[in-house]
Amino acid sequence: MNTVARDPDLAVTAAAAAAREWAGAAPTARAHALDAAADALEAEQAELVALAGAETHLGTPRLTGELKRTAFQLRFFAKELRAGTFLDVRIDRADPQWPTGPRSELRRYRTALGPVLVFGASNFPFAFSVAGGDTASALAAGCPVIVKAHPGHLELSRRTADIVQKALARAGAPEGVSGLIEGEQAGVDALRHPLLRAAAFTGSERGGLALARIAADRPEPIPFYGELGSVNPVVVTPEAARARGAEIAEGYVGSLTLGAGQFCTNPGLLFTPADGPVDEIVRRLRAAPAAPMLGDWISAAYVDGARRLASLPSTRKLVWPDDEAAAGPRLLAMDLDTFAGDIGAAATECFGPLGLVVTYDRLEDVAAVIASLPGQLTTSLHGEPHEGGELTDLTAALAERSGRVLWNEWPTGVSVTHAMQHGGPFPATTAPTTTSVGTAAIERFLRPVAYQSWPPHLLPPPLRDDNPWGGAAAGRRIAEPRRLSWPGRFPEIFTVQ
Amino acid sequence: MNTVARDPDLAVTAAAAAAREWAGAAPTARAHALDAAADALEAEQAELVALAGAETHLGTPRLTGELKRTAFQLRFFAKELRAGTFLDVRIDRADPQWPTGPRSELRRYRTALGPVLVFGASNFPFAFSVAGGDTASALAAGCPVIVKAHPGHLELSRRTADIVQKALARAGAPEGVSGLIEGEQAGVDALRHPLLRAAAFTGSERGGLALARIAADRPEPIPFYGELGSVNPVVVTPEAARARGAEIAEGYVGSLTLGAGQFCTNPGLLFTPADGPVDEIVRRLRAAPAAPMLGDWISAAYVDGARRLASLPSTRKLVWPDDEAAAGPRLLAMDLDTFAGDIGAAATECFGPLGLVVTYDRLEDVAAVIASLPGQLTTSLHGEPHEGGELTDLTAALAERSGRVLWNEWPTGVSVTHAMQHGGPFPATTAPTTTSVGTAAIERFLRPVAYQSWPPHLLPPPLRDDNPWGGAAAGRRIAEPRRLSWPGRFPEIFTVQ
Repeated sequence: MNTVARDPDLAVTAAAAAAREWAGAAPTARAHALDAAADALEAEQAELVALAGAETHLGTPRLTGELKRTAFQLRFFAKELRAGTFLDVRIDRADPQWPTGPRSELRRYRTALGPVLVFGASNFPFAFSVAGGDTASALAAGCPVIVKAHPGHLELSRRTADIVQKALARAGAPEGVSGLIEGEQAGVDALRHPLLRAAAFTGSERGGLALARIAADRPEPIPFYGELGSVNPVVVTPEAARARGAEIAEGYVGSLTLGAGQFCTNPGLLFTPADGPVDEIVRRLRAAPAAPMLGDWISAAYVDGARRLASLPSTRKLVWPDDEAAAGPRLLAMDLDTFAGDIGAAATECFGPLGLVVTYDRLEDVAAVIASLPGQLTTSLHGEPHEGGELTDLTAALAERSGRVLWNEWPTGVSVTHAMQHGGPFPATTAPTTTSVGTAAIERFLRPVAYQSWPPHLLPPPLRDDNPWGGAAAGRRIAEPRRLSWPGRFPEIFTVQ
Repeated sequence: MNTVARDPDLAVTAAAAAAREWAGAAPTARAHALDAAADALEAEQAELVALAGAETHLGTPRLTGELKRTAFQLRFFAKELRAGTFLDVRIDRADPQWPTGPRSELRRYRTALGPVLVFGASNFPFAFSVAGGDTASALAAGCPVIVKAHPGHLELSRRTADIVQKALARAGAPEGVSGLIEGEQAGVDALRHPLLRAAAFTGSERGGLALARIAADRPEPIPFYGELGSVNPVVVTPEAARARGAEIAEGYVGSLTLGAGQFCTNPGLLFTPADGPVDEIVRRLRAAPAAPMLGDWISAAYVDGARRLASLPSTRKLVWPDDEAAAGPRLLAMDLDTFAGDIGAAATECFGPLGLVVTYDRLEDVAAVIASLPGQLTTSLHGEPHEGGELTDLTAALAERSGRVLWNEWPTGVSVTHAMQHGGPFPATTAPTTTSVGTAAIERFLRPVAYQSWPPHLLPPPLRDDNPWGGAAAGRRIAEPRRLSWPGRFPEIFTVQ
């Protein structure tokens, strides 16, 4: 029985029909609906976790935590809606003395883009799927959302969509604000639909790039927010390797094998001194418990990718299963020169618990190699507290090639907070100016509109002088007329309300 | 003699070499350099305006004003740099009680994307060219800029680049932070260069879309900010037509013919009651003085485009030159049903002083047609102060299809202010979440980076607790640890510094 999934044309058309009402609803009304969806998901936790367990093999503890995170994300964006700063309200009062000519009154805010298509991810059946982070941030922005279910957890997607749709409806959201479609062709059809306004995707570089190009080749191109591949390089300094080699080996293997390596922040690449804790990593990785992967299609791709990496010249197999076709942790090694000579192939993501150890002789050679890497979600540096100036160039290179840099921590575990950045230069994402986790994720689905000399009674509420939305349109920046005329300095008067 | 323009590979490579130093410079240092460029341009005003006049036929008063605006823009972004809010600093202190698990310390800001390619526009030889708005906002963001000179004003571009490069160098900017290239192939080569990180373009829909697809088809796709076509629809209500028909006709013809119609905000489309001030518009347009266009290539395209529009079925020629090949104002008319039936062709931009009058019988039929329009930079509504509820749907449709809505004003004349929005859904731009004019234009060239548990002495200055940049990194939002644990409400403590 499938009472939820729809024809892609019907789903996008229904979303478009709901768009104006949802975009124009008070942020507090949308917040109420997001809270209701969170409550409803938690109320069905037992059933949902069981469904997810059967389809993804991720296990009850992890799935329970992920459901909790998913509900938290919905409430987190509800809270952001009540704070209102996402509207970025700017009001310029008319100024007859403005330097480039009299300035009319301008009132600008950010409003919803319109219907958004979200592609569910395989590895987060809750947190990056039907009711996940992309959905929560787009709904918060005021955009109706059509989710293309991931085939790896279809039943869970249908049940989640059913729960969310009913909760949103009970909370007063218009019909069509949440839709579900199934199948690759339906996803492509929806992406090409003329009424669609943006899309978000979490998954492989190949799949994401193909969809990004469909979005760019539409008669009307639309923003495409793809979170694709990353090998999340980790650099260990010689000092850290000497001081804390065993601890680093333990941390590395823990992060590499967490969830069978099926995280976009999995640390696939480790730069370590040639005399670093490689033997300890090997020992620990051999002892790591085997964990099932999400499905056969994932393990097959993992085994294939690992084989390709292992076949690169001058690559040593440090941990490798006797049965080549078996999943399970693997560790490869090469030296820095070899890596630098074939960086395109050697830095390719292999989704799963595979680590590539790159050994270096001199730390000062590593920064240039980091600078040549493809874009990453994260980079990490393990050093000692007293190390300073000698790490400046390396710090700069790590920050230039990634969205988040970590000191003496491991990249798996992405916290949903205000300052989180989950993004980075291509291929980490297709949109390096954005994040898909954290408060700022809402910005992807908003576009600015300015009202010039518009009558107060026809203005959107947050742009009116009396600000009927109150705290839910806080932080309004108002520029009063200048007192002196150009070319003096700019004695503008700003107020923030 | 051409001492400025460079090979595209050399220009992008030099920009990349300057990128880290420029991105890391204190905002006040970049502000100083932008001010110096503004001063230098004004010091050479006489020579530059003469050069521009010879190449563009835009006349001394307009070009003098445009140079002043260009210097103002540079200083405006310098001021924005000194205010510092563009950094969007967010600091999450570590929180062991964070609902989804202990939260590490995260410090996030926005930093420069890297080398940016700017395509100069034909119609603004100063304000959207070598030292124009895209350049000013990208330099302010900390990105080196390579400008592809518009062939319509090559000598001016070279001289401007020479002045700007010398001023930036004297102000301490690294070499390579400002580059100039010439020729279509050089532009495409630079756009495909692996070290380029973003591009900005102002021009035709056809040209911009072709470049946008080159940017999307790179092995590493990059953001492309194209400001393309717009017909800037204006709607006149029956009440306004009755009360102020002559005044509206005068305003419309003034805006339509300003600068020979060569503005991206030119009001090419007018919706008016069938008994509206059409005769008055015709009379005034016939009397409008002829003005030379930017060049023969522009008038030829204008004459062609006008002929195509005039050949649509049921189109009447209200103002049309005896000599079909002559430039000069033209006015066409059709009724609302005809327009709605061929909206794709009828709403195509014809760059120049051509107006298409669409006559309607009932105002309530107009909103649906507006909702079907391609995206616009601006839409305008001329109504009477007492009109209210009956304009709600129309207001919503106008705001949904454009970036700026104007009440009883005309769209030409884009003020450089904090709340300006110059952008809109495709084809107005290729990036509807952004603006190319006003303070927020800087956001196009910034990407967020988060530092997790990073040692203070290796943090970028605005992320340190002691904030050595002071006011130039103002408005930092700091989230303190929560006091209660989930699932209570979120009693977070925020401070803004």
